[in-house]
Amino acid sequence: MFHHSSHLQYPVRVDEPNPQFAMMLQQAIGGIEGEIRVAMQYFFQAMGARGDDRIRDMLMSTATEELSHIEMLGHAVALNLEGAPLSYQEATAQDPVMNAILGGANPRHLLSSGLAALPVNANGVPFDMSHVYATGNIAADMNANVAAESSGRVLASRLYNWTDDKGMKDFLSFLIARDTYHQQQWLAVIEELGGLEENLPIPNSTPTEHEATEHSYYYLNTLMDKEAPQGRWSQGPSLDGRGEFSARQQPEPKGQEPSLGKARPGSGAQQQQM
Amino acid sequence: MFHHSSHLQYPVRVDEPNPQFAMMLQQAIGGIEGEIRVAMQYFFQAMGARGDDRIRDMLMSTATEELSHIEMLGHAVALNLEGAPLSYQEATAQDPVMNAILGGANPRHLLSSGLAALPVNANGVPFDMSHVYATGNIAADMNANVAAESSGRVLASRLYNWTDDKGMKDFLSFLIARDTYHQQQWLAVIEELGGLEENLPIPNSTPTEHEATEHSYYYLNTLMDKEAPQGRWSQGPSLDGRGEFSARQQPEPKGQEPSLGKARPGSGAQQQQM
Amino acid sequence: MFHHSSHLQYPVRVDEPNPQFAMMLQQAIGGIEGEIRVAMQYFFQAMGARGDDRIRDMLMSTATEELSHIEMLGHAVALNLEGAPLSYQEATAQDPVMNAILGGANPRHLLSSGLAALPVNANGVPFDMSHVYATGNIAADMNANVAAESSGRVLASRLYNWTDDKGMKDFLSFLIARDTYHQQQWLAVIEELGGLEENLPIPNSTPTEHEATEHSYYYLNTLMDKEAPQGRWSQGPSLDGRGEFSARQQPEPKGQEPSLGKARPGSGAQQQQM
Amino acid sequence: MFHHSSHLQYPVRVDEPNPQFAMMLQQAIGGIEGEIRVAMQYFFQAMGARGDDRIRDMLMSTATEELSHIEMLGHAVALNLEGAPLSYQEATAQDPVMNAILGGANPRHLLSSGLAALPVNANGVPFDMSHVYATGNIAADMNANVAAESSGRVLASRLYNWTDDKGMKDFLSFLIARDTYHQQQWLAVIEELGGLEENLPIPNSTPTEHEATEHSYYYLNTLMDKEAPQGRWSQGPSLDGRGEFSARQQPEPKGQEPSLGKARPGSGAQQQQM
Amino acid sequence: MFHHSSHLQYPVRVDEPNPQFAMMLQQAIGGIEGEIRVAMQYFFQAMGARGDDRIRDMLMSTATEELSHIEMLGHAVALNLEGAPLSYQEATAQDPVMNAILGGANPRHLLSSGLAALPVNANGVPFDMSHVYATGNIAADMNANVAAESSGRVLASRLYNWTDDKGMKDFLSFLIARDTYHQQQWLAVIEELGGLEENLPIPNSTPTEHEATEHSYYYLNTLMDKEAPQGRWSQGPSLDGRGEFSARQQPEPKGQEPSLGKARPGSGAQQQQM
Amino acid sequence: MFHHSSHLQYPVRVDEPNPQFAMMLQQAIGGIEGEIRVAMQYFFQAMGARGDDRIRDMLMSTATEELSHIEMLGHAVALNLEGAPLSYQEATAQDPVMNAILGGANPRHLLSSGLAALPVNANGVPFDMSHVYATGNIAADMNANVAAESSGRVLASRLYNWTDDKGMKDFLSFLIARDTYHQQQWLAVIEELGGLEENLPIPNSTPTEHEATEHSYYYLNTLMDKEAPQGRWSQGPSLDGRGEFSARQQPEPKGQEPSLGKARPGSGAQQQQM
Repeated sequence: MFHHSSHLQYPVRVDEPNPQFAMMLQQAIGGIEGEIRVAMQYFFQAMGARGDDRIRDMLMSTATEELSHIEMLGHAVALNLEGAPLSYQEATAQDPVMNAILGGANPRHLLSSGLAALPVNANGVPFDMSHVYATGNIAADMNANVAAESSGRVLASRLYNWTDDKGMKDFLSFLIARDTYHQQQWLAVIEELGGLEENLPIPNSTPTEHEATEHSYYYLNTLMDKEAPQGRWSQGPSLDGRGEFSARQQPEPKGQEPSLGKARPGSGAQQQQM
Repeated sequence: MFHHSSHLQYPVRVDEPNPQFAMMLQQAIGGIEGEIRVAMQYFFQAMGARGDDRIRDMLMSTATEELSHIEMLGHAVALNLEGAPLSYQEATAQDPVMNAILGGANPRHLLSSGLAALPVNANGVPFDMSHVYATGNIAADMNANVAAESSGRVLASRLYNWTDDKGMKDFLSFLIARDTYHQQQWLAVIEELGGLEENLPIPNSTPTEHEATEHSYYYLNTLMDKEAPQGRWSQGPSLDGRGEFSARQQPEPKGQEPSLGKARPGSGAQQQQM
Repeated sequence: MFHHSSHLQYPVRVDEPNPQFAMMLQQAIGGIEGEIRVAMQYFFQAMGARGDDRIRDMLMSTATEELSHIEMLGHAVALNLEGAPLSYQEATAQDPVMNAILGGANPRHLLSSGLAALPVNANGVPFDMSHVYATGNIAADMNANVAAESSGRVLASRLYNWTDDKGMKDFLSFLIARDTYHQQQWLAVIEELGGLEENLPIPNSTPTEHEATEHSYYYLNTLMDKEAPQGRWSQGPSLDGRGEFSARQQPEPKGQEPSLGKARPGSGAQQQQM
Repeated sequence: MFHHSSHLQYPVRVDEPNPQFAMMLQQAIGGIEGEIRVAMQYFFQAMGARGDDRIRDMLMSTATEELSHIEMLGHAVALNLEGAPLSYQEATAQDPVMNAILGGANPRHLLSSGLAALPVNANGVPFDMSHVYATGNIAADMNANVAAESSGRVLASRLYNWTDDKGMKDFLSFLIARDTYHQQQWLAVIEELGGLEENLPIPNSTPTEHEATEHSYYYLNTLMDKEAPQGRWSQGPSLDGRGEFSARQQPEPKGQEPSLGKARPGSGAQQQQM
Repeated sequence: MFHHSSHLQYPVRVDEPNPQFAMMLQQAIGGIEGEIRVAMQYFFQAMGARGDDRIRDMLMSTATEELSHIEMLGHAVALNLEGAPLSYQEATAQDPVMNAILGGANPRHLLSSGLAALPVNANGVPFDMSHVYATGNIAADMNANVAAESSGRVLASRLYNWTDDKGMKDFLSFLIARDTYHQQQWLAVIEELGGLEENLPIPNSTPTEHEATEHSYYYLNTLMDKEAPQGRWSQGPSLDGRGEFSARQQPEPKGQEPSLGKARPGSGAQQQQM
Repeated sequence: MFHHSSHLQYPVRVDEPNPQFAMMLQQAIGGIEGEIRVAMQYFFQAMGARGDDRIRDMLMSTATEELSHIEMLGHAVALNLEGAPLSYQEATAQDPVMNAILGGANPRHLLSSGLAALPVNANGVPFDMSHVYATGNIAADMNANVAAESSGRVLASRLYNWTDDKGMKDFLSFLIARDTYHQQQWLAVIEELGGLEENLPIPNSTPTEHEATEHSYYYLNTLMDKEAPQGRWSQGPSLDGRGEFSARQQPEPKGQEPSLGKARPGSGAQQQQM
């Protein structure tokens, strides 16, 4: 069960409101790199978690923290919209802000939300829940979480680089820090599960006889005019300790020509196809 | 530039067509764990890749391989739809197939595609390209790729477990094998880049002064009725070699109460809010 | 069956074309507060209406009026795009219009529709029909309609406040007026159905024994650091006349800890979860 | 800031797992009538709330409660999937469950989530955040909330009617009860704001001179072959106390014929249009 | 301006209600081949039509007819849902109908709409307005309309083939007939515009000097293991009368290798990319 | 099976990078008129093609060419983003570019992709695969392809008209040329199939007795205040050679009034509806 306290997790301050930056911050709320995504991803992973209860608890606990990040970002958006022009006249009177509203700002911050955050990204596209990656396989899920926190920290860094507002920089430095931890938190779970080698290939419960292992350790080069690039991926023992990496130049296809023959009567095709 | 040969990468055989399994296979085409996703993800990552050209080449080369996987799966779906009933009468005549069409099958395989694959998942939901994760940060992208190949192999294993068709099992064992390799291929790139410690936190180009590092290494327990779960995430040196992990019991919020005050006249709010 | 006459329901005039305002007006066409939404919502409610035929007729009749509103707005968008620049050169020649195209305007008005309306909102996001709220329960539907007309009138007022074009202001004053009526039209249906008390809780056909009525009349305060806010919601007789309102401070959760145990073999999880 | 306790708000019990009912319950999680929607709607409304802080607090507090409802429903879905068949063979061995998987069940519960809840509706369509209705106008938002809780209780009642599982019926009777209260909670806010008459038309801050009030109080009958249906909507004083209701038979359109003339050279049209 | 009469355009009769067929009919309402799509496509094309007013009038007139088709289909869906089971018990009592509800039927017809049509396709996916193809180029739009009416008639024929309900067959034979006409209606517009040769290439207003005409008339064979297939597309005068068709075997790519070089500092990439 | 060579199909040069034009070019990648759409449409049509194998081969071959067009456009976007400002300060220093970022540019080119192409349109809306039109009926599919190539060439022409960059104009002239050919390529298939008359109505395999042919050849005028527009569509032999065109003034509806009667108990409606 969830609870709430009335104060934000961390102070959010905006020194100079900027409707364009409000638009940009939306990416951290409703973007695929954003906080709704991780909050919901960890929440659904927690609800489906089987096995070690500590991991389920951590997923739920961090989901809860991410909800608090949405809350802070929502406030940051609203503060950046303070005083934004409500009419064309107002907008053209103040030159810099005009550009804001007419340019890189989100008109729906004015038209739809009344100067408040929306559950959309920096293009105004609503977040959709298909981005909640939760497979029920703990190692697959941890990788998805590391990926999410990586793109999240990339985004927070780009926002930090963009703004010159001191309040916003302070707030973003907190988000950057938490993303630093969360990346490693999920990697640490993999260590607890025995480390990478024990967990690869994911799922590690697939019996070897379900796998055509002669195809499991070569890099397939489909580039016709270049040799296969050489690197760790093409030589040395495989990372799961079961094979040896190699590279194959573009082979002959092994399969058949996929011809479907004629269409059946009554299937809605043209007569010429039958 | 892309080219094509007329034969499939690997033979695709269906011993006993099954419209339900056609529906299930769609998840491997148009699902978030599917092949359209990885093909397009590697393609867009390749187009935005900066730095080591070998990685860009590998991304494009593997994108090309994944396109060939879509092609095989599309054929597998069509073969599973061979002989599917085109009328209620036909369906009710053959008991097992009737259940297929009336039950777990996709009516749009009949109504929309004329017994062929659709770019949708196992619920009939079309794939959308927001699932192409490509940040321009090579380490973030590699993690996203490992995550994608992990959920892809989980899916292929579940499909393998479900079906009892020998042709399909052979085909899926090939996909399982390629996913085995692709997981490790992208992990090997991280090794080439110097290994995990050199790459964390992602992005590793964010200057330390952009980060409130006092918040970078603790697990935050937001569970009110439980101690923080202990594990690698709460003790020992951090995985980026810059700090020491710890855990914090649910702290007092540090931020302000986020009150926005009154609404401005002309903002479309109720008078009572002004 | 539908019919059409060639003239608009109300005159639409634009004194000074403005591509930015064309973008903003799109919210009233393809936004969730817009006219496609109400037209389709009333249409589908009418097709599913059971009971009093007068209400079904009104739903269809007002759906038809809303189609005419889309038509007027579509024309208003096109008129605002008259003379919009078709090339960068043209755009940079006329300073004010340049800002329009390069700034808050929709590039797809140029690229996709050839200077005409699109079925999208002010961010260019296409309307999707999941926003057609039609439950088959007449009271639930009426509330959804009041909500739709409320956000519609909020939007029209914000557009009115923004523009300084006299033609547009006149047109918007008409839409504002119709929204005024439509809000009350659907509330009047609730009066005809016997008023609020007879209709609550919705659906009023749910037998009391299907409801854990000991949980039906208290406000649950989940805020840990504040008393429950007091107001009409926490005291006095309930609005359905069946109970007495109260407030409860954050209680102990009553349910179990939701542990799922181990994963099953063959379910695609990691071995460590089994 | 959010917090969590490890136990559910209310006990969730499933006496006889049923994968079909798992599919149906998804509507209460990821459907437009579901709990993700209300949780996020109240959360975003709270973040944009201006004026009376008690209402903001209530919005956040009830958002928090709705998050706990998602949690319970997620557990209910997982419990209904206990023992669901993982292979065609298993499925065809147990007749009743076979129908479940092959028929009305969601194949992605097997393929994608490993027998756990997904953030999708009963058709497998992911929830998207455009359904978060939050205008910044408190009366419009309260109406949207009443509408949401109405369709929510309609859904919970239909689920109750469908299932014959005693555990599920008990759980649903709790959700029905909370929806009963939440409908009235938001209506009570309107009472606190002075009641309906003071709040209509929404927004009540729109100056009368922005409205073509001669069009504000008549029902427009667009049905050509029927008289306007008579009722409270066509007679008596208007609900905002500013006018008198009437009905108008289908009038002559008042507007112009919307002709756009010829296409401009360079606009991508056919020559024949220029 | 739109109007409505209370009777359907054509009689709709269902002899034996069938919830599965209700699900299938949804494709003709909310599918990409369906009636919402053509209604909205012609409506938006009409609002953006420039040039010959007869064509604009026809677009609006046929849009209006298609709205009436939605209305009939909505009724057909509701009639097919008459008597559908409202509980598991009811469902399992009647064997054939049970299969219906538990199998190929849409649970949201029960849960969400109360046994009425939804604006979704046969998979329950809501229609989205991005499928309104309206370019402002009359020839491009006519082709889009022929394509839409073609897939529409394919769908109606497949539905006809499926059902054995005489009422439904009669109704579908009417839709098939109207699609027959509408295909030719839009082709006839192209004849009025001077026929195909005068209209190709579309847009025919693009100056020849904007086109690298040396690339305008050859079929490019990218298949590596097959000769270019020969046919009308590879020989004879081009259909626009400006060139001669030929075929080219897979050529050397003419462009550069698309290398982007190093990432810029501050762009959020990894240090190794800089 | 697919292959790749490292060079682009055609040279891509940008003389003066322009982030706004990068945004506009996105329409040609991820728009409904764009290259992802045709690549995937031809790919899925090829996988479902039945009948003449030459057509299947052409579909796959041209799908492959379109993939190469995505690749070129992706590079064009990245080149237009070279040197785009990464901070507000940088942006405001260079006046013209500032307008770019703050105005018509896509903030996600900075925030999400690190100055590279995204699989989205010019509004930032991701492409979704429902736009892959593939019916299994070859004539319907060819029409869909002509429509797609027509809107594609309209778009390319509008982009050509907009830009004044010589490199971009050269590149676009190549795309315009290929669209010229592809329009005629698919029309030539229809000629190979015997020409239009033999293929109409589509599908031509629908038996005449499935069609209410008395409704197959008249234009239905639903406009109440205008005569039916006269033209080729209202007179002369039908294009399928089976009938004679005519026009009908708005007729009386032929169908019944669609009344559904009362709601069933237990269906979740209000008591007043029962």
